[in-house]
Amino acid sequence: MTEINAVLNRIDADLDKSIERWFDLLRVRSISTDPAYADECIKAADWLVTQLTQIGFDASRRDTPGHPMVIAHNHDAGDQAPHVLFYGHYDVQPVDPVELWNTPPFEPEFREVNGVKQVFARGAADDKGQLLTFLEACRAYLAEHETLPLRITMLFEGEEESGSPSLDAFLKANADELKADFALVCDTNMYDAETPAIDTMLRGMVYEEVIVTAASRDLHSGLYGGAAQNPIRVLSRILADLHDDEGRITLPNFYDGVSDLAPDIAESWDALNFDADAFLGSVGLSKPAGETAYPALQQLWSRPTCDINGIIGGYTGAGAKTVIASKASAKVSFRLVGDQDPKAIQAAFRAYVQDRLPEDCSVEFVGYGNDRAFSLPLDMPEIVKAQQALTDEWDKQAVLMGMGGSIPIVGEFQRVLGMDTLLIGFGLDDDSIHSPNEKYNLTSFHKGIRSWARVMEALAK
Amino acid sequence: MTEINAVLNRIDADLDKSIERWFDLLRVRSISTDPAYADECIKAADWLVTQLTQIGFDASRRDTPGHPMVIAHNHDAGDQAPHVLFYGHYDVQPVDPVELWNTPPFEPEFREVNGVKQVFARGAADDKGQLLTFLEACRAYLAEHETLPLRITMLFEGEEESGSPSLDAFLKANADELKADFALVCDTNMYDAETPAIDTMLRGMVYEEVIVTAASRDLHSGLYGGAAQNPIRVLSRILADLHDDEGRITLPNFYDGVSDLAPDIAESWDALNFDADAFLGSVGLSKPAGETAYPALQQLWSRPTCDINGIIGGYTGAGAKTVIASKASAKVSFRLVGDQDPKAIQAAFRAYVQDRLPEDCSVEFVGYGNDRAFSLPLDMPEIVKAQQALTDEWDKQAVLMGMGGSIPIVGEFQRVLGMDTLLIGFGLDDDSIHSPNEKYNLTSFHKGIRSWARVMEALAK
Repeated sequence: MTEINAVLNRIDADLDKSIERWFDLLRVRSISTDPAYADECIKAADWLVTQLTQIGFDASRRDTPGHPMVIAHNHDAGDQAPHVLFYGHYDVQPVDPVELWNTPPFEPEFREVNGVKQVFARGAADDKGQLLTFLEACRAYLAEHETLPLRITMLFEGEEESGSPSLDAFLKANADELKADFALVCDTNMYDAETPAIDTMLRGMVYEEVIVTAASRDLHSGLYGGAAQNPIRVLSRILADLHDDEGRITLPNFYDGVSDLAPDIAESWDALNFDADAFLGSVGLSKPAGETAYPALQQLWSRPTCDINGIIGGYTGAGAKTVIASKASAKVSFRLVGDQDPKAIQAAFRAYVQDRLPEDCSVEFVGYGNDRAFSLPLDMPEIVKAQQALTDEWDKQAVLMGMGGSIPIVGEFQRVLGMDTLLIGFGLDDDSIHSPNEKYNLTSFHKGIRSWARVMEALAK
Repeated sequence: MTEINAVLNRIDADLDKSIERWFDLLRVRSISTDPAYADECIKAADWLVTQLTQIGFDASRRDTPGHPMVIAHNHDAGDQAPHVLFYGHYDVQPVDPVELWNTPPFEPEFREVNGVKQVFARGAADDKGQLLTFLEACRAYLAEHETLPLRITMLFEGEEESGSPSLDAFLKANADELKADFALVCDTNMYDAETPAIDTMLRGMVYEEVIVTAASRDLHSGLYGGAAQNPIRVLSRILADLHDDEGRITLPNFYDGVSDLAPDIAESWDALNFDADAFLGSVGLSKPAGETAYPALQQLWSRPTCDINGIIGGYTGAGAKTVIASKASAKVSFRLVGDQDPKAIQAAFRAYVQDRLPEDCSVEFVGYGNDRAFSLPLDMPEIVKAQQALTDEWDKQAVLMGMGGSIPIVGEFQRVLGMDTLLIGFGLDDDSIHSPNEKYNLTSFHKGIRSWARVMEALAK
C-alpha cells in the first residue's frame, strides 16, 4: 500500500492543476451533432494528444470521415502486465435550450450548492470530467513511478453523442492496435453520492426519426380545415398507440429476447433498497410511468422502453397561426435489453408506422443507432478486483448495478475486438447530463482520480 | 351605365399606379404577432392615413394598447345615401419557414405562372391586396366624380392575424363613429378564378395553446427512461383522442348547436358542383379527411373541425439526443358553426385535457380566440344588389357560398355595432395565404377594383 499511497498523495497535492486542465477542456465547444462545431472537435482531440504526450504516452490524432479519434499507448509495464484499453469521448451534447442555463455552458464555473462543490459546464461530467479522472490518475502515477502498473492503450472518440458513425470502421481498421485483454470505460454513474458502482448490464438502443408528410404545402386551416389531412394529428395517433394502458410497447414481437431478471442479479438489486420515491422526487415526479407490472428499478435498468425524444410540426412561434402543416416529425428511441434484436425492432417500428398511415400521407425514416444490450458475468475476476479497489477508496461497499442508458462502444468492443468492458464511473443521477446546467461534483472528480489509481493497481495483481 | 363606365376606364388607365401603391404597402413588414415588428405596423397604418387623406378622406391613426387602427370618413354623398363601414387589416402573418419562399416575402415580385400574372409577397392577398381593391375603387371614383355614391367609413386593423386583442374595446369606445347601415369586408375568396362570390356563412373559432409539464427539468432517457413520465407521449395521446374513427370530435357536447344544412343553402351549394378531387388534388391530397358522414364541401364550409396547428417538445435539432423533455406544447383550434358556443367549447377542451392528464403532469392553457360562427339571410337586399354587380363585372353568375375560415370582425360588428356584413373578396384557394409564396393574381387586383366600383354604385340605388 506504500506505493499507491504516494500516488494518492500526489493526486491530492496536484488537484488544483488537475482542475485547471479540466476547465481548459470544458471551454472547447466540441458539440459533435452540429457540423458548425467541427473545428472545436479537432481542437479537443489535439488538446488530448498534447496532454497525453506530455505525461509519457505515444499519442496521435487519427482522422476519420467524421470527427477525429485519439489513440495513445504506454506499454512500459511490460508483457507480464495486463493490457487494458481505456475509452472515453471528448464530444458533448448540444446545449439548447441555452436560455435555461444559469451560466454559459462553455464557461465552466465552480459553485457550492447545498454545501457540495460542483463544476457547471456542458461536458463537466459527460464525458470530459469522467475521462479526465483516468488521465489524471495516469499522470499522478507516472509522476511518482517510472511506469504504469498496466499496459495501457487509450481511445478517445468525438462522435459518441451523435451515433458514432465512424467507430465501427475505425475499430475494424485498427483492431490490432486497439485489442487488449479488456476495456475500461468511464461514462457511467455511481449508485449514489456515497456508493461507488460497476455497471454490469447496459440497455441497447434503436433511435429513429420519423417524418410524416400530408399536403404538398402548408395550408390555411380556414380554407382547408376539415377536409385536409393533418400530419400532426396522424403522427400523434401513431405515437399514442406505441404504448398500451399497462405501459407495454405495442410493436409486434417487441418483447422477443426479453427475459425476467436472473436470480443472482435480482437478489443483488433487491439488496440495494432502491428508493424510487427519492429518485423520481428529485426531478418533480412521484409515480413510475413504465410497465405497471415491474418495479421502478427494473423499469430503469432491465426493461425495454420507448420514448419520444422530440416532436415538431406546424407553427411553434409566439401567438396563433391557423396553419395545417405539410409535415410533422418525431424522434423516437427504444432502449433494449437481453437478446432483443435492434434491426428487427427498427424494422417492426417502420412497418408499424407504415401500417397506420392514412391515405394521402407518406413517411420517411432516418436511423440514428442500432445497438444491442450488454451484460457481464458477475464472477469475472476483474470485476471482483475493481470492486475491492472502489470499496477501499469510498469506504463503502461498491455495488454491481444495471444501467438504463446504452453505451454502444461496449457492444462494439465485444463484437469487433472480442473484449469485455468494465464500466466504472463517478457521475451522479443529478448531474443533468444532456440537460441545461450539467455539473460534476468536485468529489466525483477528485475521488474518481484516486479510484482509478487504486483500480489500476488492483488489476495489475 | 355611363357614369360607372368612366370610373371603370379610369381604373384601367391608372392600373400601373395602383400596382405601385400596392407594392409600397407590401414592402412594409407588418407582422402583428411578433412584437419585433411593432414599428412596421405603425408604418403601415401611417401609409394608409396618407393615402386616404390624399384621395379626400378625413383619415387618422388611432392608437390602441396594441397596434394602431386607422379610421377614415367621406360622407359627402349626403344623408340620403346608404352608409357603409368598410373593414380591412394591414397586418400580415409571420413568414416562416422563410427558406421555402422563392423570393423574399417583403420584396413583392411579378411572375407569370402558367400564363397567369401574379404578385408574390406576404400579404399580397391577405389582406393588403384585398383592402386596396376597395381603396383604389374609391380613388378612381373620386377622380371622376366629386362625391362617392355612398357615405363611407373605413376601419383598418393591425391585429387581425394575432387575435384582435384591442378590437372589442376599440369598437365599443368608438361605436358612434363606426356604426353604419351595414359593413363591407374584403378578406374572402372567389368561388374559383372565374366565378365571383359573396360569403354568407363563416365558421367561428376557438384557438388554444396547451402546455403539458412532467418532470421539473429535461432528463436523460438513459437514466430515467422507462420510469419517467414523458410529456410528449402524454400530449400525443390526448391529441390523438380528440377524433374518433369517423373523424368526429370527441369533446362532450361539442356538436350542441350544430344543425344540418338549411335546404335553400344545401340546394345552392349542390348547384356549384364542387370538385373535391380538384380542390384537394391541387395540394397533393385526394381524400377528404374530415367527418366521413359529410361530403367534402360541408366538411370545409359548414361542419365544425378540430386541427392541431403546431406541436413542439424535446430535441428537434439535427441528429439524435436522448432526452425526455420536461414540457411539450401544442396549438389546437376548433372551427365552429351554427350556434356552437365558443366559451363552452373552450371549457370542454380544457376539462377534456385535465381529465386525461396522468399523475405527475400539469397543464397550462393560453387562449387565442373565441368567436361564434356567422350567417346572413340569403334574401338580404344588399346581397341581391352586390350579386348583380359582381355578375356584371365577371360576366359569370356570382355565387353565394360558405367559408371555412373565421373572420371574427363579422361577429364583432353584429354584436357590438348591430350591423350585418357583406363579405366580398377576390382571393383564390391557391393564393397560399399564411404559407410561403403567398400571391394574388393581377386579375383579382384589377377586376377586384372594378368590382367594388360597380358594387358601390349598385348599393347606392
